Amino acid sequence: MLENQMREIGESAKKASYILAGVSTEVKNQALQAMARALEERVEMIIDANRQDMDAGRAKGLSDALLDRLLLTPERIKGMAEGLRELIGLPDPVGEVTNMRTRPNGLRVGKMRVPLGVIGIIYEARPNVTVDAAGLCLKAGNAVVMRGGSEAFHSNKALANVISAAATSSGIPEGAIQLVPTTDREAANMMMTMNEYIDVLIPRGGTGLIKAVITNATVPVLQTGIGNCHTYIEEDADLDAALKIVVNAKMQRPGVCNAMETLLVNHRVAQEFLPQMAAVFIEKGVELRGCNKTQEIIHCLPASEDDWGTEYLGLILAVKVVEDLEEAITHINSYGTKHSEAIITNSYQKASLFVQRVDAAAVFVNASTRFTDGHQFGFGAEIGISTQKLHARGPMGIEELTSSKFIILGDGHVRS
Amino acid sequence: MLENQMREIGESAKKASYILAGVSTEVKNQALQAMARALEERVEMIIDANRQDMDAGRAKGLSDALLDRLLLTPERIKGMAEGLRELIGLPDPVGEVTNMRTRPNGLRVGKMRVPLGVIGIIYEARPNVTVDAAGLCLKAGNAVVMRGGSEAFHSNKALANVISAAATSSGIPEGAIQLVPTTDREAANMMMTMNEYIDVLIPRGGTGLIKAVITNATVPVLQTGIGNCHTYIEEDADLDAALKIVVNAKMQRPGVCNAMETLLVNHRVAQEFLPQMAAVFIEKGVELRGCNKTQEIIHCLPASEDDWGTEYLGLILAVKVVEDLEEAITHINSYGTKHSEAIITNSYQKASLFVQRVDAAAVFVNASTRFTDGHQFGFGAEIGISTQKLHARGPMGIEELTSSKFIILGDGHVRS
Repeated sequence: MLENQMREIGESAKKASYILAGVSTEVKNQALQAMARALEERVEMIIDANRQDMDAGRAKGLSDALLDRLLLTPERIKGMAEGLRELIGLPDPVGEVTNMRTRPNGLRVGKMRVPLGVIGIIYEARPNVTVDAAGLCLKAGNAVVMRGGSEAFHSNKALANVISAAATSSGIPEGAIQLVPTTDREAANMMMTMNEYIDVLIPRGGTGLIKAVITNATVPVLQTGIGNCHTYIEEDADLDAALKIVVNAKMQRPGVCNAMETLLVNHRVAQEFLPQMAAVFIEKGVELRGCNKTQEIIHCLPASEDDWGTEYLGLILAVKVVEDLEEAITHINSYGTKHSEAIITNSYQKASLFVQRVDAAAVFVNASTRFTDGHQFGFGAEIGISTQKLHARGPMGIEELTSSKFIILGDGHVRS
Repeated sequence: MLENQMREIGESAKKASYILAGVSTEVKNQALQAMARALEERVEMIIDANRQDMDAGRAKGLSDALLDRLLLTPERIKGMAEGLRELIGLPDPVGEVTNMRTRPNGLRVGKMRVPLGVIGIIYEARPNVTVDAAGLCLKAGNAVVMRGGSEAFHSNKALANVISAAATSSGIPEGAIQLVPTTDREAANMMMTMNEYIDVLIPRGGTGLIKAVITNATVPVLQTGIGNCHTYIEEDADLDAALKIVVNAKMQRPGVCNAMETLLVNHRVAQEFLPQMAAVFIEKGVELRGCNKTQEIIHCLPASEDDWGTEYLGLILAVKVVEDLEEAITHINSYGTKHSEAIITNSYQKASLFVQRVDAAAVFVNASTRFTDGHQFGFGAEIGISTQKLHARGPMGIEELTSSKFIILGDGHVRS
């Protein structure tokens, strides 16, 4: 039953994707405009649906933080519509042909940018993902099959209905934007092995969700989001600047993936820097967990081995005193999640070494890791921050939602 | 026991990869030269080892074709050495920084090309993969962990020993080139889930191997090689050219992934083209399996549903008469493996539609699918032909064995 339903979803998405690959930028942009307008026109209906989720969430005892992520307001819906309109202005990568060259035998070989096909999104709580993901996938010429969390089911359904109807009425093929219409967990599992219909899966959510998808999926996965990020203070750092940067990296928004989780300090400046750092963080309510050497300098809880590998996403900071740059790099490459890593230094050589040898999507010199973000990098909207090395690394925008194919133009050419 | 052994291999490969990422092009090229020289100097030892595999293969009753793939001769070893030397001349992509831009706040953001890290190769019969893969991975700055087939175990071991010793003596870190020193199947399974140590897996072999890796691996996989390739003859095709192209696509080397497996013919030219085609192929010993309409025109076996989805890799050709371009494209997108697909036509519009709508790594107009190959495309050596859409599509060379990272240079920047 569910299997048939999922197969139908997959088949119609695949079919839509083949048509969508040939739809012009103009039609796609008109659809984005229509989707934005439809959201604004249907605010009340969407908020009614959201109220069902909010009531159920309260009854279920969801935390205030989760309830806030779930909540839709007229302003938030307006924000989603603005997000769609922003996509209209971005360039359409599909169809671009690069490196067309003529081989010695006269054969012309070039590379054409094409959509990925069908993208599967498995996500949690936040209903805005429904609109953001659908818009990005559409602009890149992809069909999308979305499976949201059960807490946001009614909100997601309302949003998906509004935008897919608007897209279809603007000339986008039916099936191009689909939400899996069930909260059955089995539906998500099926998506992970629908290789025949889904070209790429993008999980968006916590560590548990992402690990489950990586472990169970046979469909290729774009891994996003987990960030155990470090900042390393070198002995020659400007300590005033360093303090501002680490406070920003930890505090500007502690619950997100590019926030700092572990601070590494060169032992030559630890005596001077750690007390200043501790004074600020303790005043801001941050719990410090230090290595043995840190504990000799400031008053804090002991850090366990587990602390080095934890993404707290909250007001806890692990602190470690290291011998030198070498130890800092080794620590980061051992415990980091390859997201965002920073060094604070005035040494050209040390900055270069850090940039070269730290294995992460974004490596910073003298700046806060909080800048890892599509908008901050100047690329516009993003569908997530890739922490894997294949295909895309760092913030993924429209271009990262495309693939390429070789086109080979001959004149009766045969291989000898 | 095996688990410890595999963990040690993984750990030392990872460690080597971090050093290798900073090794200069010059040192890598010297190592490639030393590896080539060492192969030439140790020909006798390598052939002795190969003899063990050949004897065991004969005793096991391996087919002549498999024995031929297994066989090493002085010429073949010389060929491997030449392959390594060819890599010296190719550009080193590592370290290139592109799109370095200054953001309005003064932050500089750019993209640096970096190695993938540790690449796992799981492969079958042909021992030359040991040398080719190690050379390509090294040039791109990656450590490699290889697990070859049991039939070629002694040959692979001899080759790996020779080249890894030569590499180490030229300044490449120990652990950069490793062959799993056991024929235990469990070793391959372990590689598939060694996410901590292996960044990317590339299976090279038949459908069974590739499916097993895709199903079981949690490490990201680059899918290669399976090719159920089609050639479609449009009604306006030059039929003489078409015949030469399909004969080339089927016969020039029938056992490889870019050879044609199914011929699609527009019904308006079927009456004229099929008898000419059949005469040539039957004379060459090719078994034809046709759809109902084909059987009305030429004498051949009936094609079953299974035939449309089969990669024969031999002297069998499936033949189908289609109504029009639309049916041809739908058939290819339904049954193809997204490898190489060709149309023979003189129509600009039909060629454009085919190129745009066929979903494959390489789409040909008026040329044989046999051209899908790194050398034929002008890119030099390849590690395989990707048939997936993430990361790389089509022939994968040195650049496809790299990733990128963002580098962000600030001056005390914090996010507001």
